[in-house]
Amino acid sequence: MVRSLKKLLLGNPLHTASLHEQRLTKKAALPILASDNLSSSAYATEEIVVALLAAASVGVTFPLYYAIPIALAIGLLTAIVAISYGQTLHAYPTGGGAYTVAKENLGVLPALVAGSSLLVDYVLTVAVSVAAGIAAITSAAPALYEHRVGLSLLTIAVILLANLRGVRESAAVFSGPVYLFIASAFLLIIAGLFRYVTSGAAVAHPLSAATAPETWNVAMVFLLLHAFASGCAALTGIEAVANGVTIFRPPVSRNASTVLYILAALLTAMFLGITVLSYLYGIGPREGETMLSQLGRAVFGQGIVYYALQIATMAILVLAANTSYADFPRLGSVMAKDRFLPRQLANLGDRLVFSNGMILLSLAAGFLIVLFQADVHLLIPLYMVGVFIAFTLSQAGMVIHWLRTQEKKGRRWRIAVNAFGALTTGLVLIVVATVKFLDGAWVILAAIPLYVLLCWRVRQHYFQVGLEMSLADYEKPKELRHTAVVPVAGMNKMVLAAIEYARSISRDVLAVTVNVDNLDREKLEKQWEEWVADVPLVILESPYRSIHRPLLLFIDEVQDWREDDVVTVVIPEFVARRWWQQFLHNQTSLFLKASLLFRKRIIVTSVPQHLRR
Amino acid sequence: MVRSLKKLLLGNPLHTASLHEQRLTKKAALPILASDNLSSSAYATEEIVVALLAAASVGVTFPLYYAIPIALAIGLLTAIVAISYGQTLHAYPTGGGAYTVAKENLGVLPALVAGSSLLVDYVLTVAVSVAAGIAAITSAAPALYEHRVGLSLLTIAVILLANLRGVRESAAVFSGPVYLFIASAFLLIIAGLFRYVTSGAAVAHPLSAATAPETWNVAMVFLLLHAFASGCAALTGIEAVANGVTIFRPPVSRNASTVLYILAALLTAMFLGITVLSYLYGIGPREGETMLSQLGRAVFGQGIVYYALQIATMAILVLAANTSYADFPRLGSVMAKDRFLPRQLANLGDRLVFSNGMILLSLAAGFLIVLFQADVHLLIPLYMVGVFIAFTLSQAGMVIHWLRTQEKKGRRWRIAVNAFGALTTGLVLIVVATVKFLDGAWVILAAIPLYVLLCWRVRQHYFQVGLEMSLADYEKPKELRHTAVVPVAGMNKMVLAAIEYARSISRDVLAVTVNVDNLDREKLEKQWEEWVADVPLVILESPYRSIHRPLLLFIDEVQDWREDDVVTVVIPEFVARRWWQQFLHNQTSLFLKASLLFRKRIIVTSVPQHLRR
Repeated sequence: MVRSLKKLLLGNPLHTASLHEQRLTKKAALPILASDNLSSSAYATEEIVVALLAAASVGVTFPLYYAIPIALAIGLLTAIVAISYGQTLHAYPTGGGAYTVAKENLGVLPALVAGSSLLVDYVLTVAVSVAAGIAAITSAAPALYEHRVGLSLLTIAVILLANLRGVRESAAVFSGPVYLFIASAFLLIIAGLFRYVTSGAAVAHPLSAATAPETWNVAMVFLLLHAFASGCAALTGIEAVANGVTIFRPPVSRNASTVLYILAALLTAMFLGITVLSYLYGIGPREGETMLSQLGRAVFGQGIVYYALQIATMAILVLAANTSYADFPRLGSVMAKDRFLPRQLANLGDRLVFSNGMILLSLAAGFLIVLFQADVHLLIPLYMVGVFIAFTLSQAGMVIHWLRTQEKKGRRWRIAVNAFGALTTGLVLIVVATVKFLDGAWVILAAIPLYVLLCWRVRQHYFQVGLEMSLADYEKPKELRHTAVVPVAGMNKMVLAAIEYARSISRDVLAVTVNVDNLDREKLEKQWEEWVADVPLVILESPYRSIHRPLLLFIDEVQDWREDDVVTVVIPEFVARRWWQQFLHNQTSLFLKASLLFRKRIIVTSVPQHLRR
Repeated sequence: MVRSLKKLLLGNPLHTASLHEQRLTKKAALPILASDNLSSSAYATEEIVVALLAAASVGVTFPLYYAIPIALAIGLLTAIVAISYGQTLHAYPTGGGAYTVAKENLGVLPALVAGSSLLVDYVLTVAVSVAAGIAAITSAAPALYEHRVGLSLLTIAVILLANLRGVRESAAVFSGPVYLFIASAFLLIIAGLFRYVTSGAAVAHPLSAATAPETWNVAMVFLLLHAFASGCAALTGIEAVANGVTIFRPPVSRNASTVLYILAALLTAMFLGITVLSYLYGIGPREGETMLSQLGRAVFGQGIVYYALQIATMAILVLAANTSYADFPRLGSVMAKDRFLPRQLANLGDRLVFSNGMILLSLAAGFLIVLFQADVHLLIPLYMVGVFIAFTLSQAGMVIHWLRTQEKKGRRWRIAVNAFGALTTGLVLIVVATVKFLDGAWVILAAIPLYVLLCWRVRQHYFQVGLEMSLADYEKPKELRHTAVVPVAGMNKMVLAAIEYARSISRDVLAVTVNVDNLDREKLEKQWEEWVADVPLVILESPYRSIHRPLLLFIDEVQDWREDDVVTVVIPEFVARRWWQQFLHNQTSLFLKASLLFRKRIIVTSVPQHLRR
């Protein structure tokens, strides 16, 4: 039944031979790699404005046009990161994720830090993107707002199911929503600017008119950096091109870097455009409606174009979440193959996807959604730290890569570019970690070392297992001798079957029974004499009615007493025809098997007796 | 750790020899057997009044003094039932519960009906008594009212724990609260009447002044019977003396019947007194406060005497619930010994109590408490049906008993008494089942046949097991021959250990491996040649990456191919030192063992390999 349900939901298992890579043109590859990054423009502006307004709570009022220079700074940062990553593409044409780059150039510890940051990131990409996607929908249909947590969880479930079935990252699925989002964002910006110029829309927000502070102090700089750090959410996902470089047609590196630069340009344009327009139209954060939605209604009116914008926003955010379903299990399986994570994460499921990783990802993201009630503002502070750790380590790794490389041409220039990238992202990391520390960044900063430790312990364990299983020092043992112990509860066919079996595997068979509750000793001994006179029966008294303890003590004694190599415990086991019938029998054999498993030099054998009816 | 916690909560295990019966005087026995019955006077009056008032919703107004003749009728019924049960005491001096009496005299089906009614009753006794006990407390401390469900569940948990520790039904525990409740109830009645006569308390309830209807129709009779049926809650627990007769000192039957009559007289007096007084003081039902509490406050004022009354009410109700913790597991174990219930219910726990039955009872009662939000009015309709089925079957069984008895003396009289008892309780049963049908009695009427069917199926199963396990047609098999199949995942020490073991138990050993993911065939075959050249290795291809299916198919093939008696599957099993390490390994062996258990003629052997570190 479980199998049928699984088949219905997931489809038929796929043949291992069906696993193959597809190679795409730039036009087809862009939407696949862009969704994560471009979708952040749906919420990045709002994060800046929320942070600027939050300053009011400590008595500082910033004029809202401050969002524009902040967005410009982030645009510059985007350019730096893109150029820096552009070099990674050339050095790692088979895919240069932060984990790989850090492992090859910086060593294991930085690689684990990068790997754990990335895994955390992927979880947050799902949580943030889904929450923001649902926010786009509930902005257009406010009646759904109170169901946002349920809707988010449902969305995650649908994405999970689609991925367990093995949705390929096909251009067919991605290009529609991504190009629609790009088109509607640019339409919004152009139409908005046109309308502002022609009709002069009012700058309605009360704070828009605030004047710049005249004197500056450290707290104010901190608050401004806070807004900058929040806006850096725009950068998330830009590393996708470097990770996914293998999907490009040759010349791989050239095609990939072209797409990377286009992506960075698109992001910067959209993000800046939305930020400027939000200021011009006096749009501010409001509970239950995103700023992008407010902007859309202000520019387009509540018509079909507005709804198209909301749906495109939702769609690209869902696709962004979806990319984590490829990245998280892929990185998980790479780290599992390096023995840093449980090997189950490296197993391909029925549909040739890393099912275990996907399920883990969904559970973690679902947990965050519930914990933070699908609130993007609360999730963002957890997001930034991991992203910038990965950026920094990746760029730093590239610096070492160029230092070691044999190729002389343009080496200095390359080192300079990546060093500048590493320095910049490192600085932003420090800013993000500091200003967002109390908002939630501390959770991630505390989790990463724990996670690294866990990876180490896992690797240590596998190493130890390898050592102990190794045949290097194996000595062929002398011939095995064993005593068979058969625990019985009386005399019946099931018991006789177990005794017969025990007799067939050993010449030393002992039966043992525990007298819990006024056993009829005489009757049992007489029956025993009649049926299996040649096997000694030991009757143990158990005044406290425990069955296990006397049995385990007895088995210990047999082990001490005989100098055999092993004791085989032959357990007669009752197998009912129907599941409910199994509950009508004591589960003694089950518990006995479980406790014997942890004792050394004991082999456990079940002799099942199947009920005919 | 689990064991330490269990020890802390439950105390040390007790020696089987400590199980003994104590014999008590009448004065000591009364409180133990009375709590269930007398405690119903705390809510029976209110049930009548609620039912009378409910008639208003269909346009019929009854004057509240109607409660008094209804209570009188119930008093008469109590007398009939008591006299009828008095005869059971003489016929069954070793305990005559409805199940026993019905089984011996009416046959298995009526016995199962009686048994299931009783088990349902015990659950409802716990639910109703605890809910009513908590209502007594929340009446005195209204702030706790909103926590009534939680408090009820907590109370059940405490009663369960006390009983798992093995609280003896000692007179020391029972007599205080029971006699205190009796004393405070009579003090209430006497003081209330005195105060009414001297100061003429007002009949304040608006409906108290309603006049009797002038014309009667069927609906009105139905409504009145409804009130009568509700009041019959007063009778619950009166059968306790007949069940618990063994606790009396000799002359057992005489002592027991004296206590029974005293109990019936006390109940009738208290119930009638409270009913009359409630009318005189114009007390009606009110959310959040019981009528008994209102009456107490009206008579005593909100002083220490009032609080004592509430605490005594709570205490006797908790004791009433507690009696089910002796009765339910006891009946459960009797029925389990008759093979109608799973045999686990007949096992004595660490502290010489039937722990499994107690846990089951608590879960069922807790479920009802949550479902009905600890509302006594909602629980009562479920309660009555079971009680009166048991009464009726018990009395009817006694009629047969007397018909069959050899003893001639007073035979006709005894038959007449029990027949009248059976007839009366049977009539009340029909009334209760009819008028309370839609209120919830239908649940019980539907559940009892299902339950009887379940008991039948359980018995059938045990019978079948007995038949199949019987040695009557046992033929000693010819000597067992077996093939050992060792599923392996590669070549290492764990595999070699399993192969060594397999070699020691069979001359035909086959190793088999499943190629899931590009196994290095050549390397494995070379290693195999080097270490265990004499054991053939079969490599199965699995393009769909399933490990189980190819293995199971292979084992089937081996079974068909060889004409051995059995196939022993020797599974190398990895046992880590720490629990979390076990998750780092595939659970293949576990799943394989589980699926092999259900195949015939297959013996499963685990050869555990314990990690040293």
